[in-house]
Amino acid sequence: MSTNSLPLTRHSISAARTTLHPPHIHLTPVLTSTTLSALASSPRGSGTAGERPAQPTLRLWFKCENLQRGGSFKIRGAVYALGRLLEGEGREGREGAEEERTDGWVREKGVVTHSSGNHAQALALAARDQNLPAHIIMPSIATPQKIAAAKAYGARVYLSGSTYPEREALTRQVISATGARLISSCDHPDIILGQGTMGLEMQEQVSALMSSLNPYGCESGGNDPGKGGLDGIITPCGGGGMLSGVALSAEGTGVRVFGAEPSFQGADDGKRGFYAGERIEQVETMTVAEGLRVPVGWWPWGVIHGRGLVSGMYSVGEEEILAATRLVWERMKLVVEPSACVGLAVVLFDDEFRALVEREAGEDGWDLGIVLSGGNVGGEAVAQMLSDESARL
Amino acid sequence: MSTNSLPLTRHSISAARTTLHPPHIHLTPVLTSTTLSALASSPRGSGTAGERPAQPTLRLWFKCENLQRGGSFKIRGAVYALGRLLEGEGREGREGAEEERTDGWVREKGVVTHSSGNHAQALALAARDQNLPAHIIMPSIATPQKIAAAKAYGARVYLSGSTYPEREALTRQVISATGARLISSCDHPDIILGQGTMGLEMQEQVSALMSSLNPYGCESGGNDPGKGGLDGIITPCGGGGMLSGVALSAEGTGVRVFGAEPSFQGADDGKRGFYAGERIEQVETMTVAEGLRVPVGWWPWGVIHGRGLVSGMYSVGEEEILAATRLVWERMKLVVEPSACVGLAVVLFDDEFRALVEREAGEDGWDLGIVLSGGNVGGEAVAQMLSDESARL
Repeated sequence: MSTNSLPLTRHSISAARTTLHPPHIHLTPVLTSTTLSALASSPRGSGTAGERPAQPTLRLWFKCENLQRGGSFKIRGAVYALGRLLEGEGREGREGAEEERTDGWVREKGVVTHSSGNHAQALALAARDQNLPAHIIMPSIATPQKIAAAKAYGARVYLSGSTYPEREALTRQVISATGARLISSCDHPDIILGQGTMGLEMQEQVSALMSSLNPYGCESGGNDPGKGGLDGIITPCGGGGMLSGVALSAEGTGVRVFGAEPSFQGADDGKRGFYAGERIEQVETMTVAEGLRVPVGWWPWGVIHGRGLVSGMYSVGEEEILAATRLVWERMKLVVEPSACVGLAVVLFDDEFRALVEREAGEDGWDLGIVLSGGNVGGEAVAQMLSDESARL
Repeated sequence: MSTNSLPLTRHSISAARTTLHPPHIHLTPVLTSTTLSALASSPRGSGTAGERPAQPTLRLWFKCENLQRGGSFKIRGAVYALGRLLEGEGREGREGAEEERTDGWVREKGVVTHSSGNHAQALALAARDQNLPAHIIMPSIATPQKIAAAKAYGARVYLSGSTYPEREALTRQVISATGARLISSCDHPDIILGQGTMGLEMQEQVSALMSSLNPYGCESGGNDPGKGGLDGIITPCGGGGMLSGVALSAEGTGVRVFGAEPSFQGADDGKRGFYAGERIEQVETMTVAEGLRVPVGWWPWGVIHGRGLVSGMYSVGEEEILAATRLVWERMKLVVEPSACVGLAVVLFDDEFRALVEREAGEDGWDLGIVLSGGNVGGEAVAQMLSDESARL
């Protein structure tokens, strides 16, 4: 695979960031919750193998990408990748041999992608910003709100079957019919670099919050007065664009990066592949975390596993994801989709992760960044989720 | 009424602010929404008296007090007023003649209040911070979530009838039985000064956002390059503590302050009193904006009307409030209660207010601050609200 992208480095993410500004991209806030930090820092569950449950000390810092434009972090990659595509047209010239491409090809033919929803909305918005056509393939089972939103942003929406191969097949058809250029939801270096800008922002925001107003009312970093930032970041992992981008943004900083997945019906392909040493290329799952139903892409995999920039992968069950989602709604007053809360679910419920923090952080504990990745969820789904008592802790 | 409070001035609010810090009080973010600003800036409805509908230009800046500790702005007043009470005990000495009060009386006997919910949670939290008892009188029809939250924060909860006189009567009983000191939800200078800190924060935050990242991608203030802040602020008005505090925070700055109320069953007592020149002391309404069912208090009234620090009062219907609430949920991804969205409802739907902005602001438009005051709403209420199609625009 050839690419005209910048190399996958922290420096390239800094460069990408200089091109992403309001009104195209919001600077989303980092919030804290004393209640959720206390919950994460109290013993939970029965522990593994009959041992006492882990009791890590955790101060949580939530990066609220549900408040991002378009309702999720995906707008970062979409705006950046589209910008590079338009910029590159002049540079690349008539690169495609099979079709005569001229400057202005993308402006005329537009862009295409397949996505369960958030990337769809993001690319539709990014294309509208540039006044060019967007063709979006969405699974027919995507939430009606997401489909409606993509249409409202001016995209042409094509409904496909729900599996990844079905979506890919229809995408190829649309490409040959329209000539539109593909902007993948996660499997491209420009997408990774765009999503990674969130990691840089988060690191800077938390350091600034720590050095001015400390929401935890105590010296973060415990006995280490020199410490002024995050110890780790955990992000959801679907196709892996965000996880790999955030991992790059932390390269060489000492900030550990972790991935979180649903375990339902094998949705934890990233974790299984990570520990087996080989990427898993197909997944069929109907996890409630609908943004995470796809396998990790080739490019993200190279960062996550190949370059060893992710410290660990963890997975949680459906009920734990829903319980975490409900907590964010009720205690943080944020509208989040279940996919967004998989990282928090790991932090609250996964004994392996919690034992790791206890072991590595000791009494000082960790300042941990948690990405709340999106908030695109339909009213009916919310109603069901909030009235379902089984989703309570 | 005598008081040992600081005088009701902008300067006193600055002084109050120096005492309010994390972890007791969060610095809540100011967010923007291109979609909602565009909606506010497009013609809506049929206009008054057959004229064309108003078409103001509005750039909206949302102060997210739903993300405040305890889920609403009320914690500001509660923490500040309780702090003053404890500080004053030593200073005042044995001031109450009818009972022998000693230093430490409040620490031992605690505090009491009546509230439909948000002040209840706030005072419970503030009292817990200080490790002293809190007695809370709540109407038995308050949302179960609010009652549960006050109890979870360690307060003793007493359920009363739903009208203001019933709540006041039970409060007097609890005071004589327990000796606890009253901290009113809005009708005290310290509460007003505490809530007013939000107005100062908001003005500073918006100026900072304007001078760095401009989320609207254009020069705010149109043709006036010297302009670097808000033109106006609109807040919900129930008892008037927040409205009067914010009005004080804007005194002498040129920032106009407006109040917003529900019109249902006479809940617009503030507006009616404002234009009649006399405070209305009783209200009985079951508006969906349950935080705004109380009449404007004596102290807030003196600021709002007596000192002329509020530029206008506006009211909107139940459906408009629900439509605004739904927009904030769906477009801004924030959990807000209907009371929190009454200001936005006025901005979107009240032709009188919109015509005023069009007239006064002209083409340049206004940068308008909107307070989203709280997010304490039960899952069931949300489910009902979000699935009710009549609440859609």
